[in-house]
Amino acid sequence: MGSITDRSGRQFDRKAFESLLKRRFFFTESYQIYRTAPGWTGDNGGLFDYGPPGTALQNNIVHIWRKHFVLQEDMLELDCSILTPEDVLKTSGHVERFSDWMCKDPVRGQYLRADHLVEQVFSSRLSRDGLDEPTRRDYENVLAQIDNYSGDELGELIEKHDIRNPAGDGSVEPPIPFNLMFKSSIGPSSAAPIYLRPETAQSQFLNFRKLLEYNNNTMPFASASVGKSYRNEISPRSGLLRTREFLMAEIEHFVDPSGSKKHERFSEIEGIELVLLDRESQMTPTRTRTGRPMSVREAVHSRIIDNETLGYFLARTYLFLTKIGVDPKKLRFRQHLANEMAHYASDCWDAELLTTHGWIECVGCADRSAYDLEVHSKRTGEKLVVQERLTEPIEVVQWVVSLNKKLLGQRFRHHTRAVEQAVAALSQAELEASSTGLIADDRLELRIQINDVEEMVVLSSDILTIYKETRTEYMREYTPNVIEPSFGISRILYSLLEHSFWSRAEDSARSVLSLPVAVAPIKVALLPLSNHDSFNPFVKQVAQALRKLSITSRVDGSNTSIGKRYARSDEVGTPYAVTVDFDTVEDSSVTLRERDSTEQVRGPIKDILKVIDDLVAEKCTWDSVRRRLLPL
Amino acid sequence: MGSITDRSGRQFDRKAFESLLKRRFFFTESYQIYRTAPGWTGDNGGLFDYGPPGTALQNNIVHIWRKHFVLQEDMLELDCSILTPEDVLKTSGHVERFSDWMCKDPVRGQYLRADHLVEQVFSSRLSRDGLDEPTRRDYENVLAQIDNYSGDELGELIEKHDIRNPAGDGSVEPPIPFNLMFKSSIGPSSAAPIYLRPETAQSQFLNFRKLLEYNNNTMPFASASVGKSYRNEISPRSGLLRTREFLMAEIEHFVDPSGSKKHERFSEIEGIELVLLDRESQMTPTRTRTGRPMSVREAVHSRIIDNETLGYFLARTYLFLTKIGVDPKKLRFRQHLANEMAHYASDCWDAELLTTHGWIECVGCADRSAYDLEVHSKRTGEKLVVQERLTEPIEVVQWVVSLNKKLLGQRFRHHTRAVEQAVAALSQAELEASSTGLIADDRLELRIQINDVEEMVVLSSDILTIYKETRTEYMREYTPNVIEPSFGISRILYSLLEHSFWSRAEDSARSVLSLPVAVAPIKVALLPLSNHDSFNPFVKQVAQALRKLSITSRVDGSNTSIGKRYARSDEVGTPYAVTVDFDTVEDSSVTLRERDSTEQVRGPIKDILKVIDDLVAEKCTWDSVRRRLLPL
Repeated sequence: MGSITDRSGRQFDRKAFESLLKRRFFFTESYQIYRTAPGWTGDNGGLFDYGPPGTALQNNIVHIWRKHFVLQEDMLELDCSILTPEDVLKTSGHVERFSDWMCKDPVRGQYLRADHLVEQVFSSRLSRDGLDEPTRRDYENVLAQIDNYSGDELGELIEKHDIRNPAGDGSVEPPIPFNLMFKSSIGPSSAAPIYLRPETAQSQFLNFRKLLEYNNNTMPFASASVGKSYRNEISPRSGLLRTREFLMAEIEHFVDPSGSKKHERFSEIEGIELVLLDRESQMTPTRTRTGRPMSVREAVHSRIIDNETLGYFLARTYLFLTKIGVDPKKLRFRQHLANEMAHYASDCWDAELLTTHGWIECVGCADRSAYDLEVHSKRTGEKLVVQERLTEPIEVVQWVVSLNKKLLGQRFRHHTRAVEQAVAALSQAELEASSTGLIADDRLELRIQINDVEEMVVLSSDILTIYKETRTEYMREYTPNVIEPSFGISRILYSLLEHSFWSRAEDSARSVLSLPVAVAPIKVALLPLSNHDSFNPFVKQVAQALRKLSITSRVDGSNTSIGKRYARSDEVGTPYAVTVDFDTVEDSSVTLRERDSTEQVRGPIKDILKVIDDLVAEKCTWDSVRRRLLPL
Repeated sequence: MGSITDRSGRQFDRKAFESLLKRRFFFTESYQIYRTAPGWTGDNGGLFDYGPPGTALQNNIVHIWRKHFVLQEDMLELDCSILTPEDVLKTSGHVERFSDWMCKDPVRGQYLRADHLVEQVFSSRLSRDGLDEPTRRDYENVLAQIDNYSGDELGELIEKHDIRNPAGDGSVEPPIPFNLMFKSSIGPSSAAPIYLRPETAQSQFLNFRKLLEYNNNTMPFASASVGKSYRNEISPRSGLLRTREFLMAEIEHFVDPSGSKKHERFSEIEGIELVLLDRESQMTPTRTRTGRPMSVREAVHSRIIDNETLGYFLARTYLFLTKIGVDPKKLRFRQHLANEMAHYASDCWDAELLTTHGWIECVGCADRSAYDLEVHSKRTGEKLVVQERLTEPIEVVQWVVSLNKKLLGQRFRHHTRAVEQAVAALSQAELEASSTGLIADDRLELRIQINDVEEMVVLSSDILTIYKETRTEYMREYTPNVIEPSFGISRILYSLLEHSFWSRAEDSARSVLSLPVAVAPIKVALLPLSNHDSFNPFVKQVAQALRKLSITSRVDGSNTSIGKRYARSDEVGTPYAVTVDFDTVEDSSVTLRERDSTEQVRGPIKDILKVIDDLVAEKCTWDSVRRRLLPL
């Protein structure tokens, strides 16, 4: 990925970038002083602490997210428990399926994530000379779809291509699954495990009935949640991009599936053009695919995007990301391949941001259909449905079953319940077919489940009858479908920092973070020209006035040149600087400097404060300020 | 606690209050639909989900907290990992000491928290007639200090007073400690356990050096952190007041201990009067003690509060709590008893809020001395100190030790290290005394530690010499002390809801939550007089305009009387309501109603919007609005 450029169009200098983030305490590895201490036995990779600028940036991103989604769309925000009982996660499928494949190197006692192992070894082989063309193409083909292999397939690849642990060159055992949830137990006597949630979504589903009621039983509506989630990575890497604890912001938009998932406000965004990398474009066996720009209107119309609601959220996601400062040229929407999606999902798109680590999935936008509400409803017996009075009553024709319970109990004894369940599980189509069989042969073969073992039983018409029934329905009952835009805040934050980073042409050591004022950790740097005592009252006055306006500022009165201090405020992304100098003492005027252009204007403190207030509230632009005030 | 009154001075109706919180989805038990499902095996007591009004209220409280503390005092906010390695929590003492005492009822297989068991049984006996006076006094005396008993003492009480499990009357085993941290493991091969943090404080200490550097190496400064913490309660109770997962907001203020902990901004708050329940006032053996009002100036001056910085934060805490709507008459500051404090703490005060569950500790404000920085520094070898250039170099006279290592090794062989450690641990006073003994008798007796066993050794002056040394120091090096105000947001939120609750005199079924506008979940209710179509464009217009002003509103167009809908918005604490009626269609005027007074004014939509914007920004009061606009 050496071809990534920074904002100024020059080669991205990742070393300078990383040094900046560390030096200015955007974030740091957690427990760093312990990791280097003698006797340290822990593995705490993949855990990060945000320092003051990182925390402020994160808070600002979340604040804008809330305004952009929750406030603008009247979403119902929830704050739910992170600790989640096993039963819930069994139903959702996480206990069984939320895992990665890993291989053990028995000699080193080391565990390697299987797909990463293949990636690493193939990439290294590809970088060597002398590889024949068919092998090269084979490797590239595998790498292009590395996310889509099952454990068995990874095992075959490892065996076929003699893939070994790059550290020590030892061979590895076949892949085994490792569940990625952190497990704990609750209370002194509880036998049932409890997990740290892998996503905020499940609790939103579980509260569906309360949410619907809160919303006066009207549809559609969305819930939202911002909070920490967890993923016990086998071997975390890439800093903030793959962490074990991370902040998510998730929306669950509940929609009536019968209305082809139209969206009321679709017209507001349909003209927006997105770069789409759809399913088909990804079937080419190289990694150099590009997306194509297309309006949301066209994409939904041509069914590249499945429906209006999904299209609406992709466009709103685009608006959110670009508002906080993401470079639209480094943003694309990639559709999941069929085998990448959960089996119940009908469509799924990721917003991917281009970084020096490649294209990074930062937002997932999936149509989860009715799956989640249905499985939780089935497990708990709670109806997670919408009931709607029909404007016109309708006639419904249905196949129904009648059981002779007495005879059933006599014949099947303690298997009675299993038979009943198997009958209840028959679909309308199966009932229709069974009815015909029952009439023709007076027998119905049925598979029942007894302690995980399947058995075949035969029912006759003295026990069971199947017939058609016509009912008049006044209410319609349906399980809503769910469109889920899910935001990985830490990944967005990191990518945004990369997109904002550049160095001044005149001095490549002078780095700048061109963060938009709305997300910038500090809005104003306050700089006395020197540490002359007479400047203090003015610095204090401006600081206090800004505080009153709820505008964050930071005084830098350290003993270095004003130029160095400007540079210092540029590199944490502070958009404006106010300088107090000897003229200030004379006439109460100060200098206001803009970060990206380094242009300056001068005016009375009162006017400058008003200008800053307007700039921070985005009521005016720097251009208009230059016209309003005296440029220097 | 039957004597608690609500805001209107009437008896607090807890049943009505709890029904309101549940009905309007302020919060709910987590995983509720699972708890009632067949086959449920989990124990998830003490876990809660906040619904939309609860989440908004919580967000608003946190937002004001950040403005009041972080922004106003230039604090350095961090966001650190919740997952914490065992080593860190061993050093902090949590692995060993963060536990409650519990007794097992072997017949029922039930665990009971020991102090709660004593409390419950004594309270129940006290409520019965026929208890003799000495016993009654004895019980009351125990209950008054129930928080201060050790496990052994609780065991003695249980035996002496034949305390049994109220459920089933079975006798219980002696108390054993139960560690209250949730334990998990990290990665596939890690042997070391990892815990969910019990407080946010530790990571703030571990990042001290980076924070100091970020602050340009100047003191004093404070860090702050808002986030979830955990406590694996033995048997959670009292709803939001004792949960297993909760939101905390913690400040660590680092201060030079040599300056008698003065605070620069003390003068701004010294006149504030707080209700103080100091240590002495608590030694009376009844539960009916009252605090006494006293200015912070007087309390610090008379050393009731240990120092200015502690006093400053108590006053700032008072201002924060009353700003968000806590009733000052239900707020007191209680000093910890000597045996209640951690051994290293020099003073500690809790802000307690009076609720129907009694006085609830909602904020703890402790002077933790230099303990935390010192223990982490000792364990990791990292210097967690401040280095300050002295304006004048100083002469330092110190007792120092010189050891003849060769001789030491010969004489003590594999105990050499233990002797060295015992020598290194001698204080300046001990060195001075030892020096005298060494000169007089040529012998120094020393207690050394070998595998947890103490032994006495004798050193003579050929091995060890002690002498006075004078050095010139240009730098001063010290470990800062820490003042820690720690806020339990969930408890504050619950207490605030109780303090805000009352019922209208004319109709006790009409409940109101008089939340200040700044914390109210929704600022404006939008009510069309009926579902007449002509109202829709106006409702939409106002809703859109409010959204643009970032003011949360909620349309209630349901088919009930306007009075019922006013009542509905009152009970979620919405301070203002805008009503669209037939006059609106004529002249674009709307009605604005205030929640507490139910007074209404009328004006053009434009004017009303401006008024709402000013009211929400607290730029004007309702009184001034009544003068400005036409009252109805």
